[in-house]
Amino acid sequence: MGKPDKYFAHISAIVETEDIGNNTRIWGFSHIMEDVVIGENCNIGEHCFIESGVRIGNDVIIKNGISIWNGVIIEDGVFLGPHIVLTNDLNPRSGYPRPLSKTKIEKGSSIGAGSVILSDLTIGRHCLIGAGSVVTKSVKSHSLVYGNPATFKKWVCVCGNVLDRRYLKCTCGKKYKLQGEDLVET
Amino acid sequence: MGKPDKYFAHISAIVETEDIGNNTRIWGFSHIMEDVVIGENCNIGEHCFIESGVRIGNDVIIKNGISIWNGVIIEDGVFLGPHIVLTNDLNPRSGYPRPLSKTKIEKGSSIGAGSVILSDLTIGRHCLIGAGSVVTKSVKSHSLVYGNPATFKKWVCVCGNVLDRRYLKCTCGKKYKLQGEDLVET
Amino acid sequence: MGKPDKYFAHISAIVETEDIGNNTRIWGFSHIMEDVVIGENCNIGEHCFIESGVRIGNDVIIKNGISIWNGVIIEDGVFLGPHIVLTNDLNPRSGYPRPLSKTKIEKGSSIGAGSVILSDLTIGRHCLIGAGSVVTKSVKSHSLVYGNPATFKKWVCVCGNVLDRRYLKCTCGKKYKLQGEDLVET
Repeated sequence: MGKPDKYFAHISAIVETEDIGNNTRIWGFSHIMEDVVIGENCNIGEHCFIESGVRIGNDVIIKNGISIWNGVIIEDGVFLGPHIVLTNDLNPRSGYPRPLSKTKIEKGSSIGAGSVILSDLTIGRHCLIGAGSVVTKSVKSHSLVYGNPATFKKWVCVCGNVLDRRYLKCTCGKKYKLQGEDLVET
Repeated sequence: MGKPDKYFAHISAIVETEDIGNNTRIWGFSHIMEDVVIGENCNIGEHCFIESGVRIGNDVIIKNGISIWNGVIIEDGVFLGPHIVLTNDLNPRSGYPRPLSKTKIEKGSSIGAGSVILSDLTIGRHCLIGAGSVVTKSVKSHSLVYGNPATFKKWVCVCGNVLDRRYLKCTCGKKYKLQGEDLVET
Repeated sequence: MGKPDKYFAHISAIVETEDIGNNTRIWGFSHIMEDVVIGENCNIGEHCFIESGVRIGNDVIIKNGISIWNGVIIEDGVFLGPHIVLTNDLNPRSGYPRPLSKTKIEKGSSIGAGSVILSDLTIGRHCLIGAGSVVTKSVKSHSLVYGNPATFKKWVCVCGNVLDRRYLKCTCGKKYKLQGEDLVET
């Protein structure tokens, strides 16, 4: 259990990896297993669990009460809202083990509080998953989705604001266009 | 970390405020930060987190696994069911901090297990939020709401029983009337 | 707090019963109260709470973040997905205590991640509750249900695979038939 000066871990946290970047903070009653890699400037809330094999990028915010299982990939700048639920098994059964399925959460996406994310799917870049959603399939980059099951509602900017539907412009100044079914910055 | 005789904290809890009322109990692996005020006769379950700035009334029941963020106000006699999820940010984004939004839960309301409560809203007095709800907007006093998103279903009494729809009478003896769109006791 | 050689408890767990079967494992920051009985070959994840009075069978998998209340019965071979929410009070109100209601989860059933299970109900044998469901009433054996509220979708095998709708045969070789409204193995 290494606690170099470069990152902070609360006295009640259990940290079994040393692959943690500068300026990352890990809060109370959280447990980071061995063979976990966490980037710089991350914030990992209380009562979290990160399983061996997980890779987490830089500038990631992980709020309280989240378990991150082997098979889940968290890219840079992701926000995981409080008490979201991740999975790595689409058809769990005691006594019938199956291969793990994967979940990828791409750069800059935010997942709203209490959402449940099924596995064998990708949440694209800069998405916004509304609080309390159940995400059952992959989500295209820049989508705002919500509901149970979560469905597409609107496009969102890198900054998180909803885009004007006709002009695909953000109040922050960024502009986008549709390329086939995908939204791209212009 | 004060633990005066007047209230009880489990040996595994971390309590960093002294503003806790008589006869309040705080259970295992919970963390109460400094600058939190908690009233009398409250029960705070296991694996809870209460952030600096939070104010909690008297006779409040907080079941297990709940994070209460700065910006959330909990009045007297509230019941927070197990693993409900509270929020204080309507549009979270790593690297794009925004002003906190507020959530107020008024006197005597109950929030059913596993519900998700968005912010910038008020849950009125003596409401009942059904288990597994996603509450996206303010709820009038004495409402029973549920679903994702939660919608109005019926009126409920102070005691928690559903009111007879026509006569607005409770089996406990209390009587109500509509005043505009609000239910008031007569 | 007994920790016989026959089962394993993580150093950060609190275990107050000795009625735990061989080869059961209890992980970090979990709390098992006195007067709990747990069978053999169970796995109880991190940040769990098991209340006095609970009975858990053999070969049960309990993932992270789950509170199991007095009034909940867990039979052999059950899988409780991460962060599911159980209840024992249909109409909670601070200051208005009511009799506990019961929840029974029968042999071999799986409950998907983040689901909320109301009380005064039974989940039959070998069911599959999809992730993010809100279960409001009893579920017949071998049912796949999901949604908020959860409704019947398909029949599933003991092994967890969905059955061919017309022939009620599983790819694992097992065959079933309908007997009235119930599915039985032939």
